[in-house]
Amino acid sequence: MADGGSGVAAGAGFASLRPMVAPRSVAVIGASDEPTRIGGRPVHSMIQRGFSGALWPVNPKRDRVQGLVAYPDIAALPGAPDAAIIAVPGALAEQAVDELGRRGCPAAIVFTAGYAEVDEAGRAAQEQLVSTARAHGMRLLGPNCLGLFNAPLGYFPIFTSSFDVGWPVDPIPGRGRVGIASQSGAYGTHLFGAARNRGISTPVLVTTGNEAEVTLGDVIGWMAEDDGVDIIAAYSEGVREGPHFLAALEAARRAGKPVVMMKVGRSALGAHAAQSHTASIAGDDAVTGVVLEEFGVHRARNTEEMLDVVYAATPRIYPVRNTLGVVSISGGAGVMISDAAEEQGIPMPPMPEAAQARLKALIPFSNPSNPVDCTAQVFNDMALVGAFARSMVEDGGYSSLIAFFTTVGASPALAPRLRAELNAVRADHPDRLWCLSVLAPPERVREYEADGYLVFEDPSRAVVALAAQGRFGAAFARVPRGTVPLPAVTLPQATPNEAEAKRILADAGVPAVPEATATSMEEAVEAARAIGFPVVMKLLSPDILHKSEIGGVMLNVADEEAVRANYERLMWNAAENAPKARVTGVLVARQVSGAVEVALGILRDPVFGPVAMVGLGGVFIEVLRDVALRRCPVDVAEAEAMIRSLRGFPLLDGARGRPRADVPALAWALSALSAFAVAAGERLVSVDVNPVLVLPEGQGAWAADAVIELAQGG
Amino acid sequence: MADGGSGVAAGAGFASLRPMVAPRSVAVIGASDEPTRIGGRPVHSMIQRGFSGALWPVNPKRDRVQGLVAYPDIAALPGAPDAAIIAVPGALAEQAVDELGRRGCPAAIVFTAGYAEVDEAGRAAQEQLVSTARAHGMRLLGPNCLGLFNAPLGYFPIFTSSFDVGWPVDPIPGRGRVGIASQSGAYGTHLFGAARNRGISTPVLVTTGNEAEVTLGDVIGWMAEDDGVDIIAAYSEGVREGPHFLAALEAARRAGKPVVMMKVGRSALGAHAAQSHTASIAGDDAVTGVVLEEFGVHRARNTEEMLDVVYAATPRIYPVRNTLGVVSISGGAGVMISDAAEEQGIPMPPMPEAAQARLKALIPFSNPSNPVDCTAQVFNDMALVGAFARSMVEDGGYSSLIAFFTTVGASPALAPRLRAELNAVRADHPDRLWCLSVLAPPERVREYEADGYLVFEDPSRAVVALAAQGRFGAAFARVPRGTVPLPAVTLPQATPNEAEAKRILADAGVPAVPEATATSMEEAVEAARAIGFPVVMKLLSPDILHKSEIGGVMLNVADEEAVRANYERLMWNAAENAPKARVTGVLVARQVSGAVEVALGILRDPVFGPVAMVGLGGVFIEVLRDVALRRCPVDVAEAEAMIRSLRGFPLLDGARGRPRADVPALAWALSALSAFAVAAGERLVSVDVNPVLVLPEGQGAWAADAVIELAQGG
Repeated sequence: MADGGSGVAAGAGFASLRPMVAPRSVAVIGASDEPTRIGGRPVHSMIQRGFSGALWPVNPKRDRVQGLVAYPDIAALPGAPDAAIIAVPGALAEQAVDELGRRGCPAAIVFTAGYAEVDEAGRAAQEQLVSTARAHGMRLLGPNCLGLFNAPLGYFPIFTSSFDVGWPVDPIPGRGRVGIASQSGAYGTHLFGAARNRGISTPVLVTTGNEAEVTLGDVIGWMAEDDGVDIIAAYSEGVREGPHFLAALEAARRAGKPVVMMKVGRSALGAHAAQSHTASIAGDDAVTGVVLEEFGVHRARNTEEMLDVVYAATPRIYPVRNTLGVVSISGGAGVMISDAAEEQGIPMPPMPEAAQARLKALIPFSNPSNPVDCTAQVFNDMALVGAFARSMVEDGGYSSLIAFFTTVGASPALAPRLRAELNAVRADHPDRLWCLSVLAPPERVREYEADGYLVFEDPSRAVVALAAQGRFGAAFARVPRGTVPLPAVTLPQATPNEAEAKRILADAGVPAVPEATATSMEEAVEAARAIGFPVVMKLLSPDILHKSEIGGVMLNVADEEAVRANYERLMWNAAENAPKARVTGVLVARQVSGAVEVALGILRDPVFGPVAMVGLGGVFIEVLRDVALRRCPVDVAEAEAMIRSLRGFPLLDGARGRPRADVPALAWALSALSAFAVAAGERLVSVDVNPVLVLPEGQGAWAADAVIELAQGG
Repeated sequence: MADGGSGVAAGAGFASLRPMVAPRSVAVIGASDEPTRIGGRPVHSMIQRGFSGALWPVNPKRDRVQGLVAYPDIAALPGAPDAAIIAVPGALAEQAVDELGRRGCPAAIVFTAGYAEVDEAGRAAQEQLVSTARAHGMRLLGPNCLGLFNAPLGYFPIFTSSFDVGWPVDPIPGRGRVGIASQSGAYGTHLFGAARNRGISTPVLVTTGNEAEVTLGDVIGWMAEDDGVDIIAAYSEGVREGPHFLAALEAARRAGKPVVMMKVGRSALGAHAAQSHTASIAGDDAVTGVVLEEFGVHRARNTEEMLDVVYAATPRIYPVRNTLGVVSISGGAGVMISDAAEEQGIPMPPMPEAAQARLKALIPFSNPSNPVDCTAQVFNDMALVGAFARSMVEDGGYSSLIAFFTTVGASPALAPRLRAELNAVRADHPDRLWCLSVLAPPERVREYEADGYLVFEDPSRAVVALAAQGRFGAAFARVPRGTVPLPAVTLPQATPNEAEAKRILADAGVPAVPEATATSMEEAVEAARAIGFPVVMKLLSPDILHKSEIGGVMLNVADEEAVRANYERLMWNAAENAPKARVTGVLVARQVSGAVEVALGILRDPVFGPVAMVGLGGVFIEVLRDVALRRCPVDVAEAEAMIRSLRGFPLLDGARGRPRADVPALAWALSALSAFAVAAGERLVSVDVNPVLVLPEGQGAWAADAVIELAQGG
């Protein structure tokens, strides 16, 4: 028996990006003497920022470019550069890549546009460009990319006007550094600029453009392994390549580096829309979403949330069991924070009773539960703030703390005493995530940040950012799951009929309702007698996928007489409504009652492979689109978590006076189905097990119908 | 027949707050010579800001306070002040109010704490304080409030340290001014400080503290009528008083002043939780939410969203039919904005085909649909930005526009040309809401704002804020609904049984399934024969509310024989399971099939009165809490909108192969029920019409069961 592990490839070779991102020498093909031109900006920036390596402009018309010695062509270069910037038009670009490859240059950064983003001819030219690079073993960024930068090296192979306003900043001592990986150049530099305005250090940015060779996954993987990056901020319009992307996310998780990703296109319909009934519920955006969740990536809804979460990650404190304590001088702010905490799922346990009593003795009108309202009383004796904060840390044990002090944080009279009190507590407990919610001018904010605080004007935004740090901590601490055992699967040549489909799935561990196949009326009677009445009877035909539509399903067949009558009716309906279909028999199955109907399914994502789905039957799937998805294979615990995440889960959990359903059995079936999908390989297009009848606890979950769709061949 | 109108009182008398908020003279009872003490801060601030009226400190121990002539007591004042600040402890406060009232002072601002917020004795003292004020016809703010300010008058009866950092700012010429109405002093001043940091003018702030007399509704109403306020930002922890609050929101709507409200406590369970089955689904927070929606108030989820929406309201452009056009130099940003626009429900129609063709001719690689990606090409010829923007306004006709130009907005080389091009278009179309999404330093942002733009770094936040302006426009343009006719209602003395309840509702326009009451077995047979088989039979008893629990409901009664058998069984079950219940007969009703089951209900909110509810039966209410609420009365169009807002609405609209249900009939029934609730008055505790059987289009919606709960007395 094989096994499925995490389905993540090892040894993805991210280190091969080193010459591109951290070279000792760089050639600029198409270097311009004009500092604002595309071929001039990188040269200008690297001169200004003192690139640590050799900088070789190539320009056939000039001896010097921006004061540097220029070379007439690639052949004239003093050596093979570690990296080359390609800033020459179309045909010349491919020629340059070829010549660089011949000289042994391992990396090209291609600014040149007019490729796959334009038309089919461009797509062909792009393929040619990549195959040229690959022939020389070169890594290639772009084409049609803005470039990248690695600021500590003074390395700026990028054409952007964003440095007009400022260069990447150094981090506050001890704070984490952020790498930006972006498919969009404009958005990547927007993010860099916005981060810089907030004092966040982004030493590395890589934009991937058309991603003909180097993909977002490669870049994230490189950052996961690079010591110069502690936190990864990524922007994607659609993940094009699965294995490296998955390996990169796993590498970041293992390295304890948070990944925050903006994936746009939530509202667009995915590419799967028409593939099958199951697939039409999802879209590739939804699949990407569950993949991000699997690896503990924070999917940001907008730029601000992205920056907030990244900013709150810079202290590099990721609590595994995150709890929030709130101390405030405003009861209202406490309620507001509690609202946000409940929405974000970060617990706010109350202070221990004894500690509450001690605090109440200090300030009689205070509310020392949590949120702790220490009232304006503290302004008369600022030492009380210290006493309250210390008790919250030492008695309450909260891993994350928000102190809401609004304009007091900028008050010349009060702020210094507030700061001293809190700093004394912080010094004894540097392992907590401390957040001040104050209204203060930027210079005062920088002081608090240097002390070690996060500063948020809006306490609700602080809650979102703090809650994310706990989810990172939980993801980092997660023990890699045991391997999911994969069944031995031999797929038939052609798409199987319902009975075959259920047998194949039963062999793989997804049990079906007791049933038998009959090829004559008397066989059907015998089967029904053996199974027990009432039974369900269904036509079997490889040519009929949706049999209820042609009158091919008979329910509540109560006795032997009825079996005979319904057998005849089925044959009649087949002859009448599907005269060309081959009928191979009739399926006789136990009719189960008192079950909750659930649908399980597999769809194949072109990027991430097989994806498992579960949803409650009826209105939940069809009206509410209430399904849970996860990349295959899924272990039993993950399967149960999927089931419990459904909005309709209460129906399986005893709502409306029902007995609790056999959720463990359903989770086993879902896990087994997911393992089957991996073992079945690429020929498996989709599986739709619908309904699965989930009986009360201890009585199992049984497939009552199944469709397996296969690609041709075998 | 009476009618229900909007249920909003006219003549709420908001103008009576004038002496309190805009006085010609103010006395400070308990004035301190120390500028940082509670009784000193208002005097200090008003001296600094040059209060336009007379300022009279009262202090028995000093001749002068902060350089002003001080008076030993109230009797010594040179006249009756328009307003008085009370900053003296407990018992003295009430005495001061009484003395001020005797002298004819019409308004007191009570800083003093220790009232209802503390304990029962405090509550009693507060009641005494209010009744003293009322006896003199005085308005009273607080007690336990931080105070208020009206900056244009230099009037600062407030003790806050937030002016340490800065005073309220003047608006950019032409921009709207924001009034802040807050139940929380700390949060109100936090909001003021945060607004000031963003350059938003907040000339007026009023904090209401314990709201013993003046409530949030009074303050909003005053701002709705005051010429010094254009936009209202409100903060509430719970609305305590309904009529003035409703009148205030309607006054603001009629005046075309947006109200943005933060109402905290979303996550807390409301006070109604245990009232009835229907009520347990809602909570007072949910009722407040639908009241805000009714009047077009934007309910902000956090401080930032509040400031964003308020900021975007300052140009005072509120499109009635809002559409969004996006011009960008980044395809990815366009997708991100489209995601946000879909979520916010602001349409982004495409540009007309002819205009697209013209733009495509200008920049061949551009994408001129909407979002319009004009590509980095425009940097070579900035006039193209003008051409694209003009076409979007003149051909696309968008009322709201976002121009995403990120760091270009701060580029010394490019920004001035960008600004000139956009300004030329803007000058010809000042009626559009223009938003720049740029990364620029504060001084550059101020320039753009002075030009007339809104500036947002994060384009997704811009979408939220722009979409809100369209909802304001739609609310302002709404024609006040016609009055909802109220039925004549005579409620019985005691809680009616099911048959009576249905008859009462049928008289009010909520029709019931055909039925009859039988008091003997043979009457039941006769009734069933007249109604037609199958029938449902139910016990009638004023003492049994939930009859199915005691075996009091028989379904699918197929013929006369079964009517007899079931009649006996019902009597037996009553005798056995509810021996003390008075049984008044048996209800025989048509058994309807093929219907969608819906629940209608009325619950009474202690603040806002009767609230109508609709939800689909089964899992939708019980598992998903999928209900729509609205204050009564509800007209037919509003009722239909409620029904259409349900997540499960597709089930009424032909999902899953059903015929479309008779939604108009259901809307009529809901509207009629809401009118009944208003007409029935305060004795009506709740109504639960469940199920209502909604048949296919044209066949009606019929109540199959109803419970009317009444308070004692009549």
